[in-house]
Amino acid sequence: MLGKQFLHGGDYNPEQWDETIWIEDMRLAKLANVNTMTIGIFSWSMLELTEGEYNWGWMDRIFELLNENGMNAILATPSAAQPRWMSEKYPEVLRVEHNRVRQEHKVRVNYCLSSPIYRQKCREMSRLLAERYGKNPALVLWHVSNEYHEDCHCDLCQQAFREWVQERYKTLDNLNERWGTAFWSHRYSDWSEIRSPQPWPAGEWSMMSLGVAWKRFNSELTVDFFNNEAKVLREVTPNIPLTSNIHTWDVNWRVLTDAVDIVSYDSYPRFQVDDGDYERSLHASFKYDYMRALKRQPFILMENNPSSPPGTKLRRPGYHITKTMQAVSAGSDSVLYFQWRNGKTSNEMFHGAVVNHDGRGDTRAFKEVAKVGSMLQDLESICGTNIDPDVAVIYDEENHWGIEFSTMARWDGRSYMNQVHSHYRAFWNRGIAVDVIPSVKDFSHYKVLVAPVLYMFLPGVAERIEEFVKNGGTFVTTFWSGYVDEDNHAISGGAPGYMSKVLGIRSEELDACANEIDFKGHTWKTEHFADVIHAEGAEVISTFKKEYYKGSPAITCNSFGDGKAYYMSSSHCEEFMNVFYGDIIKEAGVDTLYSEPLPKGVTCRERGGKLFVMNFAPEERIVKLPNGETTTIDAGQTLIL
Amino acid sequence: MLGKQFLHGGDYNPEQWDETIWIEDMRLAKLANVNTMTIGIFSWSMLELTEGEYNWGWMDRIFELLNENGMNAILATPSAAQPRWMSEKYPEVLRVEHNRVRQEHKVRVNYCLSSPIYRQKCREMSRLLAERYGKNPALVLWHVSNEYHEDCHCDLCQQAFREWVQERYKTLDNLNERWGTAFWSHRYSDWSEIRSPQPWPAGEWSMMSLGVAWKRFNSELTVDFFNNEAKVLREVTPNIPLTSNIHTWDVNWRVLTDAVDIVSYDSYPRFQVDDGDYERSLHASFKYDYMRALKRQPFILMENNPSSPPGTKLRRPGYHITKTMQAVSAGSDSVLYFQWRNGKTSNEMFHGAVVNHDGRGDTRAFKEVAKVGSMLQDLESICGTNIDPDVAVIYDEENHWGIEFSTMARWDGRSYMNQVHSHYRAFWNRGIAVDVIPSVKDFSHYKVLVAPVLYMFLPGVAERIEEFVKNGGTFVTTFWSGYVDEDNHAISGGAPGYMSKVLGIRSEELDACANEIDFKGHTWKTEHFADVIHAEGAEVISTFKKEYYKGSPAITCNSFGDGKAYYMSSSHCEEFMNVFYGDIIKEAGVDTLYSEPLPKGVTCRERGGKLFVMNFAPEERIVKLPNGETTTIDAGQTLIL
Amino acid sequence: MLGKQFLHGGDYNPEQWDETIWIEDMRLAKLANVNTMTIGIFSWSMLELTEGEYNWGWMDRIFELLNENGMNAILATPSAAQPRWMSEKYPEVLRVEHNRVRQEHKVRVNYCLSSPIYRQKCREMSRLLAERYGKNPALVLWHVSNEYHEDCHCDLCQQAFREWVQERYKTLDNLNERWGTAFWSHRYSDWSEIRSPQPWPAGEWSMMSLGVAWKRFNSELTVDFFNNEAKVLREVTPNIPLTSNIHTWDVNWRVLTDAVDIVSYDSYPRFQVDDGDYERSLHASFKYDYMRALKRQPFILMENNPSSPPGTKLRRPGYHITKTMQAVSAGSDSVLYFQWRNGKTSNEMFHGAVVNHDGRGDTRAFKEVAKVGSMLQDLESICGTNIDPDVAVIYDEENHWGIEFSTMARWDGRSYMNQVHSHYRAFWNRGIAVDVIPSVKDFSHYKVLVAPVLYMFLPGVAERIEEFVKNGGTFVTTFWSGYVDEDNHAISGGAPGYMSKVLGIRSEELDACANEIDFKGHTWKTEHFADVIHAEGAEVISTFKKEYYKGSPAITCNSFGDGKAYYMSSSHCEEFMNVFYGDIIKEAGVDTLYSEPLPKGVTCRERGGKLFVMNFAPEERIVKLPNGETTTIDAGQTLIL
Repeated sequence: MLGKQFLHGGDYNPEQWDETIWIEDMRLAKLANVNTMTIGIFSWSMLELTEGEYNWGWMDRIFELLNENGMNAILATPSAAQPRWMSEKYPEVLRVEHNRVRQEHKVRVNYCLSSPIYRQKCREMSRLLAERYGKNPALVLWHVSNEYHEDCHCDLCQQAFREWVQERYKTLDNLNERWGTAFWSHRYSDWSEIRSPQPWPAGEWSMMSLGVAWKRFNSELTVDFFNNEAKVLREVTPNIPLTSNIHTWDVNWRVLTDAVDIVSYDSYPRFQVDDGDYERSLHASFKYDYMRALKRQPFILMENNPSSPPGTKLRRPGYHITKTMQAVSAGSDSVLYFQWRNGKTSNEMFHGAVVNHDGRGDTRAFKEVAKVGSMLQDLESICGTNIDPDVAVIYDEENHWGIEFSTMARWDGRSYMNQVHSHYRAFWNRGIAVDVIPSVKDFSHYKVLVAPVLYMFLPGVAERIEEFVKNGGTFVTTFWSGYVDEDNHAISGGAPGYMSKVLGIRSEELDACANEIDFKGHTWKTEHFADVIHAEGAEVISTFKKEYYKGSPAITCNSFGDGKAYYMSSSHCEEFMNVFYGDIIKEAGVDTLYSEPLPKGVTCRERGGKLFVMNFAPEERIVKLPNGETTTIDAGQTLIL
Repeated sequence: MLGKQFLHGGDYNPEQWDETIWIEDMRLAKLANVNTMTIGIFSWSMLELTEGEYNWGWMDRIFELLNENGMNAILATPSAAQPRWMSEKYPEVLRVEHNRVRQEHKVRVNYCLSSPIYRQKCREMSRLLAERYGKNPALVLWHVSNEYHEDCHCDLCQQAFREWVQERYKTLDNLNERWGTAFWSHRYSDWSEIRSPQPWPAGEWSMMSLGVAWKRFNSELTVDFFNNEAKVLREVTPNIPLTSNIHTWDVNWRVLTDAVDIVSYDSYPRFQVDDGDYERSLHASFKYDYMRALKRQPFILMENNPSSPPGTKLRRPGYHITKTMQAVSAGSDSVLYFQWRNGKTSNEMFHGAVVNHDGRGDTRAFKEVAKVGSMLQDLESICGTNIDPDVAVIYDEENHWGIEFSTMARWDGRSYMNQVHSHYRAFWNRGIAVDVIPSVKDFSHYKVLVAPVLYMFLPGVAERIEEFVKNGGTFVTTFWSGYVDEDNHAISGGAPGYMSKVLGIRSEELDACANEIDFKGHTWKTEHFADVIHAEGAEVISTFKKEYYKGSPAITCNSFGDGKAYYMSSSHCEEFMNVFYGDIIKEAGVDTLYSEPLPKGVTCRERGGKLFVMNFAPEERIVKLPNGETTTIDAGQTLIL
Repeated sequence: MLGKQFLHGGDYNPEQWDETIWIEDMRLAKLANVNTMTIGIFSWSMLELTEGEYNWGWMDRIFELLNENGMNAILATPSAAQPRWMSEKYPEVLRVEHNRVRQEHKVRVNYCLSSPIYRQKCREMSRLLAERYGKNPALVLWHVSNEYHEDCHCDLCQQAFREWVQERYKTLDNLNERWGTAFWSHRYSDWSEIRSPQPWPAGEWSMMSLGVAWKRFNSELTVDFFNNEAKVLREVTPNIPLTSNIHTWDVNWRVLTDAVDIVSYDSYPRFQVDDGDYERSLHASFKYDYMRALKRQPFILMENNPSSPPGTKLRRPGYHITKTMQAVSAGSDSVLYFQWRNGKTSNEMFHGAVVNHDGRGDTRAFKEVAKVGSMLQDLESICGTNIDPDVAVIYDEENHWGIEFSTMARWDGRSYMNQVHSHYRAFWNRGIAVDVIPSVKDFSHYKVLVAPVLYMFLPGVAERIEEFVKNGGTFVTTFWSGYVDEDNHAISGGAPGYMSKVLGIRSEELDACANEIDFKGHTWKTEHFADVIHAEGAEVISTFKKEYYKGSPAITCNSFGDGKAYYMSSSHCEEFMNVFYGDIIKEAGVDTLYSEPLPKGVTCRERGGKLFVMNFAPEERIVKLPNGETTTIDAGQTLIL
């Protein structure tokens, strides 16, 4: 079923209602052209009422109903929230905050990632679910746990961290050298002295290497927690694929996606809320390109909002269609919602839902969902098809951590994403497909590789960039690149570090100052930064026009092997980036339907022979189609050709 | 004395000085036309120096001086701050913070509301005070404790909460159903698993039903704490009435006011600080109307600021008179200050006071206090008289809690008050008396009942609204009404819930968006919200002019029995509300001196045959008086006719 | 060497590198005209690897290299950061936060100031260092610990505080009277009940007297901690002077400077970042005048930033010279940097440094450092010379604490500095030397004494002000003066308290309101405050023109003995202050090169016969020199005559 037919449906928590509602839900699901329900997320306390007291009845019945109605089931393991009785009986399953205080039973994702008891309980529950429902014909996918995030600072996790550090750094001398502990008398004289970071005021927050190590450890621990359940499921149901849905960004998802069979993603862009909407749409698009590129295969849109909560700016008619088609055109094999039916009370009772508290099947939101379901049936031919771009933009979580920890240097880590977007946008504006990739991924698929603000070098990355350019690739990077290695340790010799050779430049000092440059006969204002660099082999394409470094290189290009390596000393406005990348695209022979940017806010995507033209602007736009015809697309609407 | 003569005076802490000052205070009090001193608040550590070591001398002498000088005493029980030795000897009397950390001895209102030892100490102290001073001729009123607020999370309070929950919900199945614990695996399998909410990050803050229950429990616990002392006082001094002064708004005061004999209130409007002052004055007025309506009898203004702290924008000449006459005209039988004489040091040493650190009786502030005292003597005939309005506006604390906990739905709970004010203002602008009442109060006294944003239905309220309209009343409600029941549990069938019938409408979706409507031949801009509703029986009075729901009803009126029920889909500007309620007032036959709004910032109130016309605007205003004459009132001044 | 030759160099942490780098550092140091290295700060964990396992080799070798290269050593005791093994073995050395939680080993300045074990370890380490390096010819100065700040709330410190309180207040009755504990039932009945303040929510933060006492205690405890090491160093090396570098402002530095031989200061003005730069330069200047005046002798600039971190607005060419010459002209006998070479990683890896991660000696920043070194050689004749001004401005830390704790009164404590600056600036604008002094210092050196916002009177200060004026001095003070005594206890009789007689005025109420006054034939706008005062003997020089206190005195002058005492009821703009102080300077016969203000942003300083004219404005300025010639000075540049 997966990859053959689009999955349409979403999270369903029947344990909150009785059978009357279940039967009504089946009727409404057909009305909404829904073919898939995701069940079991957060159901542990309803499946195991007290320790060993199981309660399968409701889930058995739901599986019956799904089969009777020809629907797919995605079944979750309930490990994202242990039942209350477990927190009471085994307090060690509760997470410990960074301030070393053990949480009370709360909210969700409240469990220790290391606890042997919790892991055992998770394995047992996974086995019971797999044995009971693994051969059920409705089952198409395992949804392991839910939206992993954050960390636990209990003694077990601290000990696991110590062992991870010892395994990675081998000797205390090496650890002290790599983490620079001679600074501020931080030398470790015993492995037992290692502790997790703790924010101001009570703990250690000043060691950049420790900060990155803790994040790296927790990404790996999260995958280990996933594997604890995955191993059981793969043993009992070897033919059912596994996923775990990605949401917040504090885990290095690359590490998790190596472990899952299918990448799935929960997407919550605040769509068409105001005039800045196409920025949010661009960000959603960017993440879809990341999700697809992680495994170079279609992904699953596991959650998105089918309607707007009351009292927010509601999505306008048709916008729901554009939002979901954006994901489909970017490589999603599904449109799944959180959630099917609004909860009765508690934290997410007003979250968007297909069926609202009024229980009706004739609301505007419901009817738009049904329309999407019908469109997905029409698009069945492109389900399962992949996208293979000529261009990759590097967005790297570990690089992001490095920037976050770069105290003193006045770089706002939250803007790393903005800088990456400013390059990505030049392609988005032309409807050119892009893979968004971490720096450790293979570059050989691409003609153009863009690495904005590549502050941290992971091992081998610089060498692979050189190789890429030598073999004829076009590489673009910027100011603030090449400062530290994987331990947030300064690269001796200064920026851009190991890329000096391929770029043919050296940075002397980085000014936070707007400036002006000449480029192709026009004067352009630059933004935020100006890197005062020296060309050491590179051709100077443009120079700064103001300040004491007037005449110093603003953009350089270095011919290296069969390729070219560009360096941009500043950040730039959208118009400049459109012009700059226009040349790059032409030179590098990037395949594109549009050589010039589409009207502002409009983009297009091609998948499996279908062309999706989407207008994310707040007004209608006139668009010239590839066949030469001109058409008008209303605000927030999509055209499928 | 109470209700016969206005009380004028205030909080007095003679224990901070010696007898020389006391005698000077008596001299100055006469100069200031002061007839009442409130004593004993926070005096415990000076009354009981160490456990059982009593120190009555100073208070005995103060009672003598008050009697000698013909003054009234309001005597406080000192339970709002235990003495330091008690916190040391019995640490359980100290409050535990929401983060489960026991406070150190600090500030004030630092006690556990449940502690048996503290309750016993409070009873003993109350008995000693009552026995010693209960028959003193100066004593006119008990001031039990002071400004109850906030909560304690100690094990005793947790256990009391568990018992309260069990008493209210009877069975775990019922509790799980009412609190929706199937969501996020929050099912309770034992009563012992119930804990108080705790803010992010360490505890449970996501359960809306739990949040409301904890607040409800604490209101009741506060009253129970009050009764602990009240019982002793009523036993020993059955003829002395009891009050407890209301200040912050985290207790459901309705519950406390059922327990006291007289409502008293501490009012601290930041008066005439800038151009927005008449907004603050309206808010003060609103609260006075709430205090008076709580028991449908005059109230006591227990604290207000007699002067401005140094370095603030000082109140201009005459403003103090307007501020105090506003309370008197709204039903206060007193003008009492915090405080008589400025403290020597500590947190409130610069709080406003009648006698400043300079100790003088000839300052501007002192002379204005004396003037108020003399005016109160002239107004004696209206003391004790009540006000009986035709109009009630519902402001409900429990509704407010419901809104506060409505996560996801983007309603800013702090603005509930603003919405209520926007309706109240239409009456204030005409000087029409209004009762401000919780939703559980009797509606039968009124011709017009206004319930802005009645989000939460307490039991019986919807039925009583139907009854009110059926019997000929005019009812007005708005968007965001009828969403949840008393447990923050969504009302099945959607908004406006149980009021659908009386209103003759159904809400489909609530947009956060300004719009326009036509009303009585003019176009009006609406604000913030637009409820997309369907008229199901109601007459459509006005429709939206923009957005995809153009033409959809913006205001409806449903004839029901002998009355009418209006629904407003949006919030509106002041001018619109003036026009809208002008018609309502006329139709419903509301008694009023002014059918048109007074000049902006001016209002009037009638009490006991006296008319108070007050100008809260920052400039002078020309006002037409009821006798047809026209007069000018300066900024911040009052005219009494 | 000290006081004969300017020290040029800075903090150096060779323990982060190997000998190859050390030798390169010596080469670069000569290139940079550097003659001094400060070593040993934060080196404990590299000097004592585990308890008793010493590691002197690297420091021995550094001393050899310094001697070989003719350089001075400033040697630090490493007590600003204990080694990690010590925190593990003796947890009591770790500081306890105000919330009573013991810190983990973290950051720096993480030690308990009271711990007997830590004090013993510090004495032992001081002795070892003094015995090993005390006679080394390179050693010129002891740098005891580093940048003392903040406090510890452990049981040991609490007990020390209790003893300090008992020693100061003698009896509980006196303590209760002085701290006003009758308020809010805060009476102490036993010394053991005294605890340190704790911020909201869990502890006592409301007692102003306690707040000031805790700060006072900690200043004295800090000095006691200093003396613990100083005593050993003075015993072993009686001829080597001692300093401890001042940085943050939460210690009362006056108390520390009585204990050191030389005052040293870490100065981090954010220089020339934007148009407001000369404000920051004025503040730097102000602090230099404070440092010099503390001991009435030249001071040591122990740290300043030799370059700007990457990604900040970089200092423009020449600005580094102006920044360092500002300190030299104000009385510094050194220009020392943090730091010589950028750390490899951790919190300050991007802090400014002479040698950057690129390791080069040809960067712009490096070359400007070398230029400063060469200028200092040329200026050798003025090294060691002092400055002896006619004018003193009082800036008092204890007064600042008083203002910080003045709740209710709406005075923003952070602006005390701004108010003091507004007076100081009138002298700075004319290049007139000023001593900035705490209120307890001797006033007899001065012709003019300015005490803006002298809110708190320390014992004897009012008497000494009277004496100063009686003997012919000119005294200026302002609104918000004379409110409390040293315990934050209100002065009976009202403001300006004990200065009423010398000023000949009385304050009635203090309004927060801009106003207008007439002065010397012009109308001036006033700012922020207007004190409504009564002249009781003083001559009224100017009156308010608006508000209900129109005609009330705005500026008064009281002839008292042979002198004059001015009172300013408002704060004023720069232009007014220039005019007002122009008269004062003339009347009092203050010695000055310029009777009129220099162009905006320009100031000058004279030291040892050299005149430094500095332009802190963002544009060039035309300046008339004392010899009558006119010259142009570029933005950020200095002229030395």
